Amino acid sequence: MKTQKTVVRHDCDLLSWLRERGHHLSSPCGGKGVCGKCRVRILEGKEILALPYPGLRGITLDEWEDGWRLACKTMLDEELTIEIPDSWNTDANVLTSGDYEVTLQPSIEKVYLELPKPSVEDQVSDTDRLHKALSFTGILDLSLLQSLSNILEENEYQVTAVIQDNILIGIEGGDTTKELYGLAIDLGTTTIAGTLIDLNSGDEVGVYTNLNPQKDHGDDVISRISHTIEKKDGLQNLQQMILNELDRMVDFFEQQYDISAKNIYHINAVGNTVMIHLFAGLPVKNIASVPFNPITTNLPDIRAKELGLKVYPNAAVTSLPMIAGYIGADTVACILATDMLEGPGYSLLVDIGTNGEIVLGNQDNLLCCAAAAGPALEGAHIQCGLGGIRGAINKIEICENGISHTTIGNKPAIGICGSGIVDAAAQMLDRGLVESYGRMLLAEEASEKLSAELASRVREYSGKPSFLIASKLQGASTEIFITQKDIREIQLAKAAIAAGIQILMQEMQIKFADVEKVYLAGGFGNYISHDHAMKIGLLPVECKDKIIPIGNAALTGAKMVMKSAMLKKTAEKIRKAARYIELSTRADFQDIFVDNMEFK
Amino acid sequence: MKTQKTVVRHDCDLLSWLRERGHHLSSPCGGKGVCGKCRVRILEGKEILALPYPGLRGITLDEWEDGWRLACKTMLDEELTIEIPDSWNTDANVLTSGDYEVTLQPSIEKVYLELPKPSVEDQVSDTDRLHKALSFTGILDLSLLQSLSNILEENEYQVTAVIQDNILIGIEGGDTTKELYGLAIDLGTTTIAGTLIDLNSGDEVGVYTNLNPQKDHGDDVISRISHTIEKKDGLQNLQQMILNELDRMVDFFEQQYDISAKNIYHINAVGNTVMIHLFAGLPVKNIASVPFNPITTNLPDIRAKELGLKVYPNAAVTSLPMIAGYIGADTVACILATDMLEGPGYSLLVDIGTNGEIVLGNQDNLLCCAAAAGPALEGAHIQCGLGGIRGAINKIEICENGISHTTIGNKPAIGICGSGIVDAAAQMLDRGLVESYGRMLLAEEASEKLSAELASRVREYSGKPSFLIASKLQGASTEIFITQKDIREIQLAKAAIAAGIQILMQEMQIKFADVEKVYLAGGFGNYISHDHAMKIGLLPVECKDKIIPIGNAALTGAKMVMKSAMLKKTAEKIRKAARYIELSTRADFQDIFVDNMEFK
Repeated sequence: MKTQKTVVRHDCDLLSWLRERGHHLSSPCGGKGVCGKCRVRILEGKEILALPYPGLRGITLDEWEDGWRLACKTMLDEELTIEIPDSWNTDANVLTSGDYEVTLQPSIEKVYLELPKPSVEDQVSDTDRLHKALSFTGILDLSLLQSLSNILEENEYQVTAVIQDNILIGIEGGDTTKELYGLAIDLGTTTIAGTLIDLNSGDEVGVYTNLNPQKDHGDDVISRISHTIEKKDGLQNLQQMILNELDRMVDFFEQQYDISAKNIYHINAVGNTVMIHLFAGLPVKNIASVPFNPITTNLPDIRAKELGLKVYPNAAVTSLPMIAGYIGADTVACILATDMLEGPGYSLLVDIGTNGEIVLGNQDNLLCCAAAAGPALEGAHIQCGLGGIRGAINKIEICENGISHTTIGNKPAIGICGSGIVDAAAQMLDRGLVESYGRMLLAEEASEKLSAELASRVREYSGKPSFLIASKLQGASTEIFITQKDIREIQLAKAAIAAGIQILMQEMQIKFADVEKVYLAGGFGNYISHDHAMKIGLLPVECKDKIIPIGNAALTGAKMVMKSAMLKKTAEKIRKAARYIELSTRADFQDIFVDNMEFK
Repeated sequence: MKTQKTVVRHDCDLLSWLRERGHHLSSPCGGKGVCGKCRVRILEGKEILALPYPGLRGITLDEWEDGWRLACKTMLDEELTIEIPDSWNTDANVLTSGDYEVTLQPSIEKVYLELPKPSVEDQVSDTDRLHKALSFTGILDLSLLQSLSNILEENEYQVTAVIQDNILIGIEGGDTTKELYGLAIDLGTTTIAGTLIDLNSGDEVGVYTNLNPQKDHGDDVISRISHTIEKKDGLQNLQQMILNELDRMVDFFEQQYDISAKNIYHINAVGNTVMIHLFAGLPVKNIASVPFNPITTNLPDIRAKELGLKVYPNAAVTSLPMIAGYIGADTVACILATDMLEGPGYSLLVDIGTNGEIVLGNQDNLLCCAAAAGPALEGAHIQCGLGGIRGAINKIEICENGISHTTIGNKPAIGICGSGIVDAAAQMLDRGLVESYGRMLLAEEASEKLSAELASRVREYSGKPSFLIASKLQGASTEIFITQKDIREIQLAKAAIAAGIQILMQEMQIKFADVEKVYLAGGFGNYISHDHAMKIGLLPVECKDKIIPIGNAALTGAKMVMKSAMLKKTAEKIRKAARYIELSTRADFQDIFVDNMEFK
């Protein structure tokens, strides 16, 4: 914890001011004063007293008088001093691993050439001289051609050609074949993960993870889309945030592994359709409303220089194909990372990130849908919710006589992340603290039905019950509790996922018993208690013993395609084969959705 | 004739100053004070007297005192008034016609689409929506994709797709299919000619010709190459001159034919290898010295926006393949415009522009070479020589009792162009005024051997004989004469061409009698007297009755390929089939060259 003084500004809220300085406060509502996440404590500053208490979400009168404010609604007017909690700058705990095996045959290759020098007996153009030594079907662009003869001459015709899919994209002096790297990236809505790959060996050199800086404009893709609609330069702004983050990733790899940014020749980034559109600067507004159409499901040829990235200027910037507005390149990458397509047996793939993507299929059929689960299962829209960062409660055990928990990094608890929320909900249900339709017991009801220890944790919050998970007495940094509203959020999220699965089953005309494997992708899939997920009905109970957590399978798929260019064809086959089921417009969806709201 | 005052400048010569103001004075030597072509008469100005008479080429002491100077060697120091002769701004008389017939199937096509609007039942991305209506294999680039959805929406999905060779290069609102133009251009060293083509009908809408503004940096490609080596921004400078000239061409077509620059979707420019390299901003220095290698013989994909041209930003900018440093896209275009490849009979193609290109072949074999003829046959390096502009003497008849001439545009003669020079040389030879080894008769010898009228025209010039062709008495603006040095220039030029033809015949192991057709390309081929060309030995006498003038066949070829994309393959076949013979490094060349110096 440290303190910081601001300068006088009249035209800026404190949230924006802090973000400009690199503090990534959570703000799921996108600065609308609704979510109550961007709490800031002002230590010194006249306006603390000058402004009346507005009853803003989650800030009590006592806290208000103690200096607590919502940063998004605090306009800077005077010099003031604020607290900077460590959590604002905490590294994200992002899954980056995943098992896979591919034949190494990257899109980008380098070939060292010792060309014969021009002579009267060997009178050919510079490009024909290269052609004689090397087969390629074209030269990338005019600027490469403009630099060609100088590079050849300065290096006495000993050069390294950089080839991508039969196109010459670069010429370097001398033998540089050893320096050939690529970046496989998962552009998640919440977190960004990148792996630096040595394309000569296929080895993974290093890993980088961080929160997606676009979080400053909302936790879910809808908030980000809104930002591009509401703000004039919103789209460019969000795009630039991602590009800057990639440059920071490259800086990190340069410093950590003694490589040069200029030796990164390929960036293969997967992500949901909105993220990939934002990354490429493509308008996303149509994805927000019916019929949710993206601009494209395949990016055109892009070079790093077009985006201003600091890697090799002609580096290829690619993604994988997308399937629909809400089934993106990350899902295609996940499918690639499984063996869903490899036999007659059916598999179910559930990727619960900020959005929930569900795929059901086998070698003949592939159905997919997107469940508007919202980011509740990632900790957003939950009163004490957090992403999977250090200090987040990731495991909870509720016993008759008390509650124990663990946190990520064994830090004092500062909130509760997805797996902890599922643990809490499942066990509150088990103990009768939550009824099957989701109502939490009132304090007086709890006193009757529960042990004194558990009943003492039931309190009132905004006129509804809440349940204390951890307090300072248990080593937490603050009181951490689950509210009635949190339970509702979980109900909505699990109902959306469960309804999606049910509808795909119906469409495929199969039963849960017919499903051989259930792939759980994402950090959530790895950390969640499968039993608790089935308890709350997020996954069907028939999944038991079939669940295979596949980690960050999106990143795995991105790495696989980077290492083995042939898989691009498989990815394109997936795109063409997959049939997308739009849930929101189905006549039967609401019924199935509501039916799944119940904790059965 | 008008007069113009300069401003005071200390750092600029008068030639540069005038050029900056759009006056294209001839300067074959590139401003070195050698050729004596950039004569300027200064009417008022202190420095006239201040500078000593430097004995600069072609300016007599009388002329010096009368205010004549070489603009390139006159530094501006004071305000002065000069004469601006009309000829500085005369339009070039450039051949643009040529017969040909092709199937209309341009590279660029437009298709009007009325796409179904997105609906839940038809939930596909914008690009897939286009794909369903239209087959294309890719979208040009990210920026096109970025603008796609707005254009679709603003026009209610009624749009015109612009397709080039299976790639989507543009989308326009509404039905714009009627507006589809292309520019076929011949980038000559001396002159530039362009034809605006309606790609829907194949009709030629209009023609534009002008001098190549690069002439300011020398008349031949070697001077231009030197400019790029000597000046830091020389290459960019020469490139920009051409690009500006193309923009002026587009302005002209806009004004003249009520079309919009933005409706020009294709520029197909041919020219010699140096011109095409300069046009694309590719270094040319290696073309000037052994082994004369260009950077490339095929341009990569270029868009108009990369060059900053004011046509449609994604317009295709193409050329035809080149064969070697001195056999360019113009020669390939010429070959395309003939039927050289269509049978077992041999044809000879001679293109005497600023360089001389010679091709000999039939359906099985194609040999070519470049003759360093120099620009003498285009009027450069000739004392009173001029390009084919208005006022140039283009026909001369020398009789016993006098000389008659015609001029281009029937203007008072201001100089003599290529066809006139060949007429003069052939008849001076005929009349015995020039001996077979090229020596001109001295005045006293002429008095003995010629009529008094002709003998009176033989005068001394720089210590050697000269022969008066026209004077003010015959309606000329000034005295126009042929010097001994001019005859030497013609000897060198014709020897180079004749030697080139002879060596190709040897290599092909055929005789002149085996040649069925002799194609003469370029303005020269159309305007020259064939008999006189054979008389001076420029063409073998065996050519008689076989000569087919094909006009600006380079431009014809450029137009053909623009109208019929299939011909690109034929052009590529020509490039691959043609064998280039480098004359300058052959052991037998000097001997054959000197042997052809004689007027036989």
